[in-house]
Amino acid sequence: MVPPIAVGPADRLFMFGGVGLGASLTALEQVTGRPVVWATAQYESYARPGETVIFRVDERVRGNQVSQARVSATTDGREVLNVSAALGQRDLPERGQWTLAPRVPPPEDCRPRQLWEGRHPDDIHGRIEFRIARGAMHGPRRGGGGQSPEDGHVVMWARPNPDVLGPGHMIDTAFVAVVADYVPSGVGPALGRDAGGNSLDNSIRFHRRVETDWLLCDVQIHGVANGFAHGRMHIFAQTGELIATASQSLILRLWD
Amino acid sequence: MVPPIAVGPADRLFMFGGVGLGASLTALEQVTGRPVVWATAQYESYARPGETVIFRVDERVRGNQVSQARVSATTDGREVLNVSAALGQRDLPERGQWTLAPRVPPPEDCRPRQLWEGRHPDDIHGRIEFRIARGAMHGPRRGGGGQSPEDGHVVMWARPNPDVLGPGHMIDTAFVAVVADYVPSGVGPALGRDAGGNSLDNSIRFHRRVETDWLLCDVQIHGVANGFAHGRMHIFAQTGELIATASQSLILRLWD
Repeated sequence: MVPPIAVGPADRLFMFGGVGLGASLTALEQVTGRPVVWATAQYESYARPGETVIFRVDERVRGNQVSQARVSATTDGREVLNVSAALGQRDLPERGQWTLAPRVPPPEDCRPRQLWEGRHPDDIHGRIEFRIARGAMHGPRRGGGGQSPEDGHVVMWARPNPDVLGPGHMIDTAFVAVVADYVPSGVGPALGRDAGGNSLDNSIRFHRRVETDWLLCDVQIHGVANGFAHGRMHIFAQTGELIATASQSLILRLWD
Repeated sequence: MVPPIAVGPADRLFMFGGVGLGASLTALEQVTGRPVVWATAQYESYARPGETVIFRVDERVRGNQVSQARVSATTDGREVLNVSAALGQRDLPERGQWTLAPRVPPPEDCRPRQLWEGRHPDDIHGRIEFRIARGAMHGPRRGGGGQSPEDGHVVMWARPNPDVLGPGHMIDTAFVAVVADYVPSGVGPALGRDAGGNSLDNSIRFHRRVETDWLLCDVQIHGVANGFAHGRMHIFAQTGELIATASQSLILRLWD
């Protein structure tokens, strides 16, 4: 585990949950030879810098069209996360998309988010370029651009950051899973304060794979109660085609 | 396993997925002494009438406020389903609900759904009373009342059926989980044909526990592609308070 896949205070970095899900999905697709339909990662522990994380794939049921599989990621025998997933592809012509992309300005007309001071300069946040299309990211004090929306709704564009990663870095399944782990960034704006959360899980449902230069991320926080928050993110291609829907439950963290 | 917790053709009944999730949540809350925050059931196999299903709870991490746990449900050593869950309660005053209940007529002014012919007369569908507030359930030919909505959006009221269960049957965590497994009923109306799906998973996020006589179930099908469908259900109390949000991915089934 190295800083570019980590988050947290500079002296207490841990592996970003979306990286664990993304690595698991890549491993699952390689082992089964099938695309992920749905996956849920449960986060049990943290992987720290210098530790090695081992991902073990268990394809439990292999049907004609659908595989049921799990991944266990461990470090030093300690389980960091486990993933349940279904993978497959079926040859049916029926298609529909009822979840529509919000109408927002194109990424070049949207403000870049500001990253807060005190983060590790080479953590994962620098590797994703976000542009704020509606609302703010992370809440008032951490910046992120824009106003707190009253409806708990935040929209941003995302792509692999060309300034850090160089040009031509493709948006693949793993990158979608990493971006999907940004649901917590909507909690602060929803509450109107500097707040966020630690993911209990990261669930993702893939609708279609569509090539795109930018992802349009539509975050809705459903609610906050009893010290937990719940929310979802619809992820669209630039054309408005739905690529995936993610959802998460979080341990609420207040930073102000 | 007995017909009242089953679905399917009368000669090929299997345990309803929501019953498996509901039983798992009840077991998890009893073993940990904590309320479920989030849970995902992955369905691997079917339990058939006459089979005994054993639910084993594994509380893997018990923190001060949050437990990470799993359930494995087996019959004859074959895994039927597995559940990943987080449970807990934290004493933080922050609260918010940004997901609003749709404005619909009260249950007494809504049409009851019609159950199709050929079902087992004592299956689980008879134990839940549904009233259709918007759209239809299950699609054109299976009835269910109302028109197919063009936006993939179906709203219904649900309660334990007093005609079958008698009066005074409380809405508890398990009942919410059973109702949450009705996301597939929105697939037919969304496609405008007689269709539905077999759940790959059933994921539920509990916002607050609120006493209510009826649940208001707001189903949105996100999309259908490659033979799979994805959707969610927001579950509200009669007061409009959000109780839970469920989501599922399905193997698309066409019945027309």
